[in-house]
Formats: sequence, C-alpha cells, structure tokens
Amino acid sequence: MYFYKEDLINLIVPDKPDPAAAKVIQEVLGGRFGEMRTMMQFFFQSNNFRGNAVQYRDLIRGVFLEELSHVELVQHTINQLLTGSGEDQAGDAGVDHAPLDEAIKHANPHHFIMGAQSSLPVDASGNPWLGSYVYSHGNLISDLLDNLVLESTGVLQKSRIYEMSSNKTFRETLAFLIVRDNAHQNAFAKALETLGVDWGKLFPVPNYDINKYPECRKYVEMGFHNAQFNFRLDSTRIGEIFNGQTPSRNGGDLSVIDPPEGFPLPYMPELPNEHSPGLQDLNS
Amino acid sequence: MYFYKEDLINLIVPDKPDPAAAKVIQEVLGGRFGEMRTMMQFFFQSNNFRGNAVQYRDLIRGVFLEELSHVELVQHTINQLLTGSGEDQAGDAGVDHAPLDEAIKHANPHHFIMGAQSSLPVDASGNPWLGSYVYSHGNLISDLLDNLVLESTGVLQKSRIYEMSSNKTFRETLAFLIVRDNAHQNAFAKALETLGVDWGKLFPVPNYDINKYPECRKYVEMGFHNAQFNFRLDSTRIGEIFNGQTPSRNGGDLSVIDPPEGFPLPYMPELPNEHSPGLQDLNS
Amino acid sequence: MYFYKEDLINLIVPDKPDPAAAKVIQEVLGGRFGEMRTMMQFFFQSNNFRGNAVQYRDLIRGVFLEELSHVELVQHTINQLLTGSGEDQAGDAGVDHAPLDEAIKHANPHHFIMGAQSSLPVDASGNPWLGSYVYSHGNLISDLLDNLVLESTGVLQKSRIYEMSSNKTFRETLAFLIVRDNAHQNAFAKALETLGVDWGKLFPVPNYDINKYPECRKYVEMGFHNAQFNFRLDSTRIGEIFNGQTPSRNGGDLSVIDPPEGFPLPYMPELPNEHSPGLQDLNS
Amino acid sequence: MYFYKEDLINLIVPDKPDPAAAKVIQEVLGGRFGEMRTMMQFFFQSNNFRGNAVQYRDLIRGVFLEELSHVELVQHTINQLLTGSGEDQAGDAGVDHAPLDEAIKHANPHHFIMGAQSSLPVDASGNPWLGSYVYSHGNLISDLLDNLVLESTGVLQKSRIYEMSSNKTFRETLAFLIVRDNAHQNAFAKALETLGVDWGKLFPVPNYDINKYPECRKYVEMGFHNAQFNFRLDSTRIGEIFNGQTPSRNGGDLSVIDPPEGFPLPYMPELPNEHSPGLQDLNS
Amino acid sequence: MYFYKEDLINLIVPDKPDPAAAKVIQEVLGGRFGEMRTMMQFFFQSNNFRGNAVQYRDLIRGVFLEELSHVELVQHTINQLLTGSGEDQAGDAGVDHAPLDEAIKHANPHHFIMGAQSSLPVDASGNPWLGSYVYSHGNLISDLLDNLVLESTGVLQKSRIYEMSSNKTFRETLAFLIVRDNAHQNAFAKALETLGVDWGKLFPVPNYDINKYPECRKYVEMGFHNAQFNFRLDSTRIGEIFNGQTPSRNGGDLSVIDPPEGFPLPYMPELPNEHSPGLQDLNS
Amino acid sequence: MYFYKEDLINLIVPDKPDPAAAKVIQEVLGGRFGEMRTMMQFFFQSNNFRGNAVQYRDLIRGVFLEELSHVELVQHTINQLLTGSGEDQAGDAGVDHAPLDEAIKHANPHHFIMGAQSSLPVDASGNPWLGSYVYSHGNLISDLLDNLVLESTGVLQKSRIYEMSSNKTFRETLAFLIVRDNAHQNAFAKALETLGVDWGKLFPVPNYDINKYPECRKYVEMGFHNAQFNFRLDSTRIGEIFNGQTPSRNGGDLSVIDPPEGFPLPYMPELPNEHSPGLQDLNS
Repeated sequence: MYFYKEDLINLIVPDKPDPAAAKVIQEVLGGRFGEMRTMMQFFFQSNNFRGNAVQYRDLIRGVFLEELSHVELVQHTINQLLTGSGEDQAGDAGVDHAPLDEAIKHANPHHFIMGAQSSLPVDASGNPWLGSYVYSHGNLISDLLDNLVLESTGVLQKSRIYEMSSNKTFRETLAFLIVRDNAHQNAFAKALETLGVDWGKLFPVPNYDINKYPECRKYVEMGFHNAQFNFRLDSTRIGEIFNGQTPSRNGGDLSVIDPPEGFPLPYMPELPNEHSPGLQDLNS
Repeated sequence: MYFYKEDLINLIVPDKPDPAAAKVIQEVLGGRFGEMRTMMQFFFQSNNFRGNAVQYRDLIRGVFLEELSHVELVQHTINQLLTGSGEDQAGDAGVDHAPLDEAIKHANPHHFIMGAQSSLPVDASGNPWLGSYVYSHGNLISDLLDNLVLESTGVLQKSRIYEMSSNKTFRETLAFLIVRDNAHQNAFAKALETLGVDWGKLFPVPNYDINKYPECRKYVEMGFHNAQFNFRLDSTRIGEIFNGQTPSRNGGDLSVIDPPEGFPLPYMPELPNEHSPGLQDLNS
Repeated sequence: MYFYKEDLINLIVPDKPDPAAAKVIQEVLGGRFGEMRTMMQFFFQSNNFRGNAVQYRDLIRGVFLEELSHVELVQHTINQLLTGSGEDQAGDAGVDHAPLDEAIKHANPHHFIMGAQSSLPVDASGNPWLGSYVYSHGNLISDLLDNLVLESTGVLQKSRIYEMSSNKTFRETLAFLIVRDNAHQNAFAKALETLGVDWGKLFPVPNYDINKYPECRKYVEMGFHNAQFNFRLDSTRIGEIFNGQTPSRNGGDLSVIDPPEGFPLPYMPELPNEHSPGLQDLNS
Repeated sequence: MYFYKEDLINLIVPDKPDPAAAKVIQEVLGGRFGEMRTMMQFFFQSNNFRGNAVQYRDLIRGVFLEELSHVELVQHTINQLLTGSGEDQAGDAGVDHAPLDEAIKHANPHHFIMGAQSSLPVDASGNPWLGSYVYSHGNLISDLLDNLVLESTGVLQKSRIYEMSSNKTFRETLAFLIVRDNAHQNAFAKALETLGVDWGKLFPVPNYDINKYPECRKYVEMGFHNAQFNFRLDSTRIGEIFNGQTPSRNGGDLSVIDPPEGFPLPYMPELPNEHSPGLQDLNS
Repeated sequence: MYFYKEDLINLIVPDKPDPAAAKVIQEVLGGRFGEMRTMMQFFFQSNNFRGNAVQYRDLIRGVFLEELSHVELVQHTINQLLTGSGEDQAGDAGVDHAPLDEAIKHANPHHFIMGAQSSLPVDASGNPWLGSYVYSHGNLISDLLDNLVLESTGVLQKSRIYEMSSNKTFRETLAFLIVRDNAHQNAFAKALETLGVDWGKLFPVPNYDINKYPECRKYVEMGFHNAQFNFRLDSTRIGEIFNGQTPSRNGGDLSVIDPPEGFPLPYMPELPNEHSPGLQDLNS
Repeated sequence: MYFYKEDLINLIVPDKPDPAAAKVIQEVLGGRFGEMRTMMQFFFQSNNFRGNAVQYRDLIRGVFLEELSHVELVQHTINQLLTGSGEDQAGDAGVDHAPLDEAIKHANPHHFIMGAQSSLPVDASGNPWLGSYVYSHGNLISDLLDNLVLESTGVLQKSRIYEMSSNKTFRETLAFLIVRDNAHQNAFAKALETLGVDWGKLFPVPNYDINKYPECRKYVEMGFHNAQFNFRLDSTRIGEIFNGQTPSRNGGDLSVIDPPEGFPLPYMPELPNEHSPGLQDLNS
C-alpha cells in the first residue's frame, strides 16, 4: 500500500510562462521514454517479479516509488510553464485579436482545450501515452537491460530538450531529473554487474559534460547521481545491490539514503477564462 | 512524495489457473474504465488542481492513493490466474502437442509472449492502455461528473465480468473492487452534493443486488462501501466532504478510516519454461 | 439537415444467438472497409467538395445517406446475434460454471463488458475505428478511385465473412449489403466512365457467383445491384451520372429509385444481468 | 432511414482565411469531445437501446439527428477558414519563397496535404478520431451521465477555443454550438431528473457569462438553449421528457420545436494548386 | 534474399537547413501514402501472392525493390534538411536564448528529441506509421486498384508538399519521386489494362503541369516516367506487362531498364550537442 | 540500392494448416519485437548514422539486410500455416455449418477477411505494427544497447511461442530465427565490447538449453549463431567488429560468411473461396 506526504521531491523555480517549453517538456512526462513510462514499467516489473531474489524486486520497486514523485514534479513544472499564458497580450488595447491567439502558436493547443493550462498524458508531439511502451518480460536480465536503455535514453532526451528553452522552471527540473536518471542508470547497471558484466567506461550514457548543464552541478555535489532514495516504510534489500563503487566512469560510491526533505507544491491560481476550477461561477 | 509498505490492500484467494479469466479481467487493469485509468486520472486531476478549495483536491488525491493499491491488487490477481497454465497437459503422455497449445486457446497470447504468465497494461481485447482515456479538464464540476461516470462504469463492468468465470481468485478481487468503486462513487457524488445536487435515489449505478455477488457481502458488512481510507502521512481535509449521510440509496454514514491492515504479496514461483526470472540459467 | 423515419432499410431475420458471428461481422460495422468508413468517407467528401460539378457531389452524398441506414442495419444485426447469449447454460443445474464462461470463448469480450450484448465501433479483431481510414483528398478522380476500392473491398470481405457462420440473421444482412455494395461500385465506376474510362469486364470485384450466396438472389432480382435509392427531400442530380448501361459485366441499366418501404426495428429485450437498461432496478 | 435537405443548420459567416483557427477548431469536429463523438455515441446508444422506455431512445436519437448537422456545419466552417490560405503571399514578387510556406507555419499540414484545404477527421493536435471515444454501455443512467459530461465538456472546450481567434467564421459557429450543447445538456439533465435527481444550480457547466460570447446572445434570445429540434418524419416521444422547467439555473421552459429554416451551403471554389477537383485538368 | 550496393537512387542536392520542410516531407516517408507504406504494401502483396500468374508478382515485387531505395532517399533528404538546424542563432551573442528555441518553432520536436536531427517513421503531423495502412487482400484486381490509388495519391500529395518550401534539397527529391510515382501508376494501370480496362485519358492523376515543377523536367526527359528499373539478380517477367504504349495521356512507350548508376550517401557530420554518435565523448 | 534474388533464406517445412499457430507467430512478424521492427529499426539507424566510424554503420546495415529476408521468411511461414484452413470440414456432409466456422475459432479473423489466408502486419493480439516501436536516437551506445534488448527479447519471445504448437512449419522457422537472433545479439554485444564492456557470462539472453529446441541444433552445428551473412555487392567493414571470440558464454569465434544458398519460395495455390487471385473469375 502507498502513503503520501504532500511534498514535491524538488523545487519548482519560478519564471515566466513559456507554452513552447511546456509543449516539448511533455516528452519527459508522457513520451515513450518519459516518467510515466518509467513509473508504469517498474510498477509492472516489481509486481510481476518471480522467484526468491527479492533484492532485485526491491531495487526495481524502489526506483518505481521515486518515479511517482517524478511524474508529480513534471506535472507541476508544466503547469508552472503554462499558467498565465496569454495574459501579456491582454494589454494590447485596440488590437483586434483573441487572448490566446499568440499563446497557441507554438503550443500544444490541447494544453488550453483539454487542460486548463495544465499537464496532459501526452508527448512533445501530442501523441497520447501508450500501454505498449511498458517492457515487463519477466526475464530479469532482459528487464534490467531494457531499464538501462530507458534511463539512458531519458538522460539523452533531457539533454536535448534542455537546449530548447532557457526558461529557469524548465531547466531546473530537467537538470534534477538528468542527475536522478543517472543514479537510476547506476542502479540497473550495478544490478547487471552482480550478474557478471564489467561495464568498462561505458556509463553514463550519454557522456554529458556537467559544465554544459550548470543547474546539474549542485545535485552532483550533493551526491544525487550515486544515491538511491529509500521510500519504504518497512525494510528493503536495495542496499545489497546498490552499494560499493559506481559502475559509471565518473566514480564514487553508491549509497541508499533518505529522500529529500520535500518542497511545497506551488499554488495554482484560478483561471476564470478557462472556467477553472469554476467554483466562483457557482457563487456568482 | 510517496511511501510504501509491502502489503496488498486485500487478500488474493488461491484457486486453479484460468487464462480465459485472466484475459477478461485485464479490462479491470488496463481498460478504458479500469484501475490504471482511475489512478492516472485522479493523479492528473489532483496535481492540476487550481484554487483554494483544497478539500476537493484532498478528496481526489485520496482516491488516487487507493487506486495505486488497486492496480497492484489486480496485477497480482492476474498473475495468480495465469501462473501454472499449461501444466495440466504435461501429463498427457504420448500426445503430440505443445505445452501451451491448449492454454492459449481462449487466452490473450501476449500473457505468454510479452509477459511471463503475468499482467500487462492492456484491456480484455488486448488493446494497450491509452493516455487519451484520462479526463482532467480543470473545471471541478466536469471533473467530478466524469469521475462519477468512471466509478459507476467501473462497477457496471465488474458486475458483468463477474459472470465470466466462477474462479475464486477472480471473483474475490472483483467483489472487493465493486464495493470500493461504490465508495468512490459516494465520494464524488457527495462532493457534487456540496455543490447543490440532490441525487434522489440514483446511486449507486448500477443498482446491484448484493445477493448476486455473495463475495461482496463481507465488505459491505465491514462498511467498506461508505468508507474512505486515509493514506496520508500528513493531514488531509477529505473529511470535510466525505461525512454525513451517503448519497446512495443503500443508506449509512460516510467516514474516513484507516486503511486495511494489509495482506502479504503472494509468492510467484519461477517458470523455467518462460525463462523467468532466468537466474537459475546463469548458475547452470 | 437530416430527417429520420424509424424504419430499417432491410429485414433482420431472426435466428439463434451466435456471439462468434457477432464478433466477425463487427468488421462490416467498424472495420477499415466497413460501413462506418463508407459513411464517414462520403460525408467528408461531399461536404469538402469543390467546384460546380455538383452532380458528382450529389452522387457521393446520395451514397452517404444510404450508408447511415447500413450502419444502423449492422448495429441491429449484431445486437440480434448477441442478445440471449449465455442463457442456454443457465439450465445446466449443478454445474459449477458462470453464465457467460462459454459465451465469451469465441466472442469479443467487449460485447459483454462495454456493450450490454450490443454493437461496438470496432473491427473483427477488436481494434477501434480510426479517423485515418477516411480518404477525402479533394481530387475527384482519386476520391472516386478510392471509393471504388472501398466498395469492392467491402464486397470481397463480406463474401469471405459469409463463410464464417450459417446463421440466418448474419447471412441475410451480409447478402443485402453485398448487393448494395455492388450498386455503389457501379455508381463510382460509372462516374469514372463519365471521365473517360472503359472498364471492360473488370467489375464487379470480386466476380462472385450468385449461386454461392443464395440470399443475394432476391435482391438481384429486385434490381438492387443496379439501383440507387434517393433519400433527398429536395432535388438531386444523381441521375445525370447514374443512368444508362451498368459498367459491370452482369449487365442491365442503372436507375435512381425510391428507397425500400422500411422494416420495423427489432425489439431488444431488457437484460437484467447486464443492468440494461437498469430502470427496473430503480423501481425495485 | 435517413433523409436529407441540402441546408446547413446555421449560417457560415464569411471572414478571411485563418489556418491556425482551422487547426484548433478541428477539436470540435474530430476531438474526443467533438461533434463526431456526440454523433456516433448517440447513434450507437439509440440503436443499442433495450426495453420499452422508448421516450429515452427518442430523446437520444433526436440529439443524434441534430449532431449530423453539426458535423456538417463544422466541416464547412473549417473549409471556409482554410480556403484561400497562401494566396496573400503570391503577390510578394521577387521573394524566394513557396506559396504555402507561411500558411503551414501554425497550421495542421494535413489540411494542405491530405485535404485540399478542407476538413479532416482529426483533433486539434492532429490525432485521428478513435472509435474508443464512444460510450454506449446500455445502462440508461450511466449512458445519460456520460452524455451529460460529453455535452458539458463540449461547451467548456468551445468556450476555451473561442479565445484562440477573433475570426468571425470561427466565432459564429462556436457560439451557435455552445448554445446548442447547452440545450443538449438540458435534455440529458432533464432525463435524469425524471429518474429522481434534483440538480440544484449545477447546470449549465461551465457557468459561462453570455456577455463574454456576444455571438451567443441572439441564439439565447431565440430560445435555442431551451429547445430541442424535431427532425423526425414520423412521431416522436421526446416531448414526454423534454418539457417543463429547464434543469439549468438560467431558467425558462423546455420545448420541442421545428428545426431552423436552413442556410445554403457555401460555394467552395476550385483550387488548381491543390488539383481540386481536378476536372479542369482533364479538359485542358 | 536481398543484396545491397551503397548507392542512393538519386542525388541529394545540398541547401540550407529547413526544419519546417523536414517536418512536412515526413509525410512522404511515414505518412499513410508515403514510401514506407508503398514499400510494405508491395512487400506483403508479392509474398502473399497466389497462383501461377507470376508476371504480376514480379511487377509488384519490382516496384517494392525500388521503394526500398525511395525510403532510403527520403531518410537522407530529411537528414540533410535537419542537419545544422539551430547553429545560426549561436552567433546571437548576449541574447538569453537556447540553441534550439527557434529551430523547434515550426519543427517536429521529435526530430531533435528522438532523432539526432534525423528522420523518423512518422507523418507530417507526427503520427507514427501504422501497419493498418497496408492493403494486401489477395484479390489481384482489388490489390492493383489500391496500388493505383496509392501511387496517384503519392503524386497528388507530393505536388502539394512541393508548395511548402522552395528549399532545393526538398524540391529535388520531391520532383524525382513525383516522376517515379508516375511510372508506378503506369505499371499498375498497365497491369489492369491486361485485364481489360481502357483508361481513356484518366492518367496520370493528378494531371500536373510539368512546368510548375521544373525539377521534374530532366527526369521526364530521361524517360523515367515510362521506365521500370530492374533490381533483380535473377530473371523477371515484369516486361510481359510493362511494355508497349503507356496508359497515361502523356504518351510514350514503357520499358524495363537498368537502375540509375547510383549516387553517394551524403556524409552526416557528428553533432556533439545531440551526443551523436557520442564516440568522441568516450575518448575524451 | 537493393537487389534481389528470388530465394528464401531458409526452408519452409510443410505440415498441416494450423490457424492458431499462424495467429501467435504473427508476433514474430508484426509484434513490438518482431522482424518488421528489427528491419525498420536497423534501416533507420543505418541511414541516420553520423560520423566516420562507418564500421558500425556497416554492421547495423548488414543485419538490416538479413532482416529483409527474415520478414519474407515469416510471411511465407504464416501463409503455409493458413493455406487450406477450413477444407477439412467441407467433407462433413449433411452438417449445417459454414466452411470457416471452426477455422476462425482460435484464429485471427483478419487472416481470412483482410488477407486471403495470408500474412498481415499485425502482432499476436491483432494490433497493427506501429512506427513508434523504432528506436533510432543517433547515440551509438544507446542505439546498440537497444538493439541488444531487441534481439534478446526476440529470442525470449520465440522460445515462448515455440511452446504453443508442435507444427513443423512453425517450429522450424522459429528455430532458425532463434539461432540467427543469437548471432545478432553477438553482433551488437561485440560492438559494445569494442567500446569497453566485458559481458562476463551474460549472453545469450535467455540462456536457452538447445536440447529443448531440437530444430535449433543443426543451425548451431552449422555455426549460424556465430556467423554474420554478407549481403553487400560492394565492400563492407563488418569484419572489423564481427571477428574474434564470441561475447556469448557458448564460445566460438565470430566470422563473416556468404549467405545460405537459398531455398525456393513455396507455391501458394489459388483459393477460389477467398477470390484469390480471382483471375479465373475473369475468364469464366
């Protein structure tokens, strides 16, 4: 069973609305290699696990638990990037235009039609999330290899999306997730090491230069690339796998630690134009 | 952030394998009105919530938290129904047939190809789960109305699926979920009552006769149709809405209670034929 | 604007329930070459029509109007094939089985889960109907050629589906539609003749032997393969194209005639097990 | 059977081409809550109807009949918004650009590739219409509740899309449909009232301020929000449900009336660049 | 079995990057009527062929073999249009923007997220290629008719896409493919002539004016519209069908000829920002 | 450019029709990890390749070329399994049943509706192949890792499908492909070895016991698990990577060899009931 404390796993840094950035970061939420995929894939793998080697199930489930917080973090990031879109033009008195005609130009129009300037379960191209993304074949090696590809591709995509806007809300969330995906790459690569692989200097994929992503630095300095957060209220055997030297070329030792202290959920203001939440309408 | 204790929210009752039952109960997991939909819909609605009326967000999030456990419960139910399929024929000595040729006849073949006799994110017809199922429009009334349709349809479908097998594993899980969907109907109907609706004798939908589903009785007697479990580690305002008389014709008072004590996850044996988990292969 | 008289375009011949037949005839309703496709394709083509040659628009729209009745006819055919499924076993006293466990074996389980033993917008394999099936490119020749392929494939598929059950409800509807698709093939082939093509002995596709489909004979004898029904309340220019010698090898002259007199919609009894319509529940 | 008179249910107001507006209003045609969905959903529900309470079937079918005209209206609206796109640049002599390079910048490119500047069965994000949108579960209460959500969401989405362009063709069609969706909300809410619900002041959803949508006013003054058009050539029992006081807070009495007189279909000129219809090519 | 010589079937003409052009020409690669469709459709039709009339199988397979080269040609065209996008802004010193924020404005963002500025199996609207596009019904006439529609629609779409950019890389590939689709139209139309049709002056569809597409002229002068390339290492019977007078109004005689001599694959430079191929990372 | 010699890469062993086997082996053709996926993935990766390390492109392209033959082999295998289905019942004189009513019971009905008893681009559950299966991210390591997962999963799935029928046509093709997938695993694992990985005893995945799949033995004895076929008509640098000791625990040295000599395509008889090819109809 699942328990909740209303805290975000990382800070939402405020900046101006940026619907074009919201559109592309949807890939990180609802894309084929986004957080909904990692969440659902590890959910299925951990409950479909067979046999006694439950330290591997605990590892996979542990990452799943964090992915729940990642989905939540990206939802709030998108909401922050969208909220307030279109307000700037309101001041263009005398111009015969509509409040959203500029906002939607490089946006996903569903952000303003199906959502009230808020997140959706779709990718950067507007395709809905698909159950067939999930890989849970029940063979531990193939499942771990696919998880490794998934986390590596997650970093790769985020490093590319990072180039698409200089918005601070956008980049901070991406940077945090790049470092955490790196940690999860380490988790699955380490699990495969226990089965005999020596990775040489292959990981992390891609071999990103931390100086290109300055927001990443503080998370690396906090050791977040070599840590696994423990969200279990009972005991876990993650530490039997996630320990000792990192399988990545950047070095350091792996350790299971407590989750971050938590950050407040940003307040999302009412949007009367979007009839959201619409309660004021009832009272009027 | 999300925390976990390795307990199921209800018991998995053992019975014989039944791949045809596993196929149809996939609707409850990955169907358009299944538990993955309720989970993701309430996840998006609670994080996309706007304004100060957070008692409604707490209610929606509260149901979301339980849906995580429901997804987990159905995954284990399907695994129980599948595990061991095909073993019976093994004894048919001298017959020129394949171990799974009977098992797949009325099964979803993906249960044996993509899964190692385990659950998948698809519906009863094998269609993958779709992000476009999620309804999160940000207008509180329309969101609540859709949630009501979703929970009502959940009960309706489960009462129909119940007729498709007499397998005990299958029926016990369905019965538990019918009663819990009923409670969630009450939650959303009650929330709409706070906005002015008087439901008359409309709910629950459908008006099922509890004697037709004997496994439901004990859950009703425990009051599970009028209770909302509280999975929050911090405080919640669910009780401001979920209290007083039920909106359903079957009567009683609503109350927020502690979750069930929890039941152990069933052990899933290794399946060498499916190469799952395949670790024994490495050691041989 | 569209007007309606509650009549079916052809008779629903009663026979026993046959869920396996219902499953495969879904192709004729919701398949890539089914009646929903023809209906929507001709709907888009007629309203997207450009230029003054409105006799072609009238022809396409005329076929569209009939397709509305075809969709309705197939919906009722499927409902007839499904209604009552599972009742036979109810008499098997003392047997520990569920009312629908046999019925769903070769059925589309969604017929009993999402529908109350009734029709769905899916194909014979359970895939939902897709907007991308529609061809409306706005070039008259390419649109007419695609319509020809669509109607030819309709006949071809129906002649194959015909071999899948000897149920009379099933075969009568297929036979009627085979002959009507043949007429629509003639309509589009004739339109292309006005643009210069001489079809030789190519049509109809396929070259079916009417003796193989005895139910077809009466419709051919009534001239339904060479007639176009007129559902317009105002005037139409269909007759400028649909006249003279048929483009098909089976000979005869084309003519625009009044629609059939109409047949009553079959009564669909209540199904308490499916909670359909469920009104009796409210009064109990 | 279905009959047709070549009239639009409302006027297409001419204005300049606006491909960006055409892109977003596709949601109203082919979106999850658009007119193709309402049309097909009520088509399936009315033909899948069980039992004797045919006044409900007549109500659902009555709305279906109007939806056919709505699909047609939106198709023509989109065509009007697209026709002539790209012509403006043609005058930019000496500039090395292509006739459509500007037009497609904020357009759905399929409007110019698959359509000849004309409507498509897709949503605002370019996703094709899906059969799985249709809800027809056969339980009258759940079907009516879903219809209510569908019509409410229709108004909600249209009020948001309205903000995306000030084009008159675009806004007039949206305004007409907002008022008609409101009437259909009333129809389904009233039907649920006959089953015992008292809606308080919940409807319409959302609680829109008519002054924000000035084009709506005339339709409200004509009473179109409280009327149901009768498209039956035989008798109908809609009036047994659709009568008396509106269930909506805006007051008034419901009545079944004759359809509007009808408006001419706009002429769609030939587009030689798009080879549409392409007949002039044959004669050259 | 298939053999390969590393040559492109036509030249890639260099020009500036143009991500908007890359987005729309994806239709030609992964659209419903694009080269992936033609390739897969003819692949299935030729291997699913029944009976002794293998000259038709040889014809279909012959076109399939060329389509392999077409897919390859369009992939390289897209890569050329994308490579280097975003570099221009790099010089805008002091401006607080991201390297790709302009490039993605009218682009498919997946070109920069899932691809490293390279081609994808999707259409111009970002929808993934679908197996259900393939038509292979096994009746020779219906298969040939559908092939004719497919090739005609290919030319029609390409003539429309041509108007969307004046980029030379883009237009040269389109022009080559327009002429080759024309030849394939001739192939399938001629095959239907052997079965009795006289096409009059119907083909090619659409009746394009070669002066509008100047890049086409040289290919027509080389006779590429009336030629079929022979990619067989063993003998083929294509020539039994593809000979004599063209079925198209533009005249000339059909002939089977050797493939073009072949053009070098363009060099695709490394893109460190996209971590592609990422080998330099390993060595650093 | 691509050249063809009409030979299959392996023998089609004749056996009785088995539509249930044809249904499940569709996974190997059109499934998420089937031969269409491997073919298209390596096609995109090789043409999207960046940089000078073309020995890797040659390796990937080399596997692509073989996958073309694999798709062809599975198409013919499915056709062999389907051809003749339903003929047995024809002899059941006096029984009132339809020729295909038994055949479709455990079949994919589309095999008899959309195909003329022939192969389709779908998976074992009837879902159409999807472009979004393709992984071509342009980072060599992530592409190679995904290829490894793809080939490993291919073997895993085939070893499971093998248990679903004892039909010889079915098992021989599966066995050949299991061994070839094993070779391709070696190819991609070896390529990663050149980048620094030491696999220990991880590969092949899964660790199958060759005695369980007796049809595999002869291919292993021929060294097919350690060989890469060369289908290039010009030179290739595959051998720079594919040489030396295998990365798999089963030992041996890798070598690039000539393709098999080739096997004749099976003759597919006409099926008049399916109107395939339907030419005899024209002459009658």
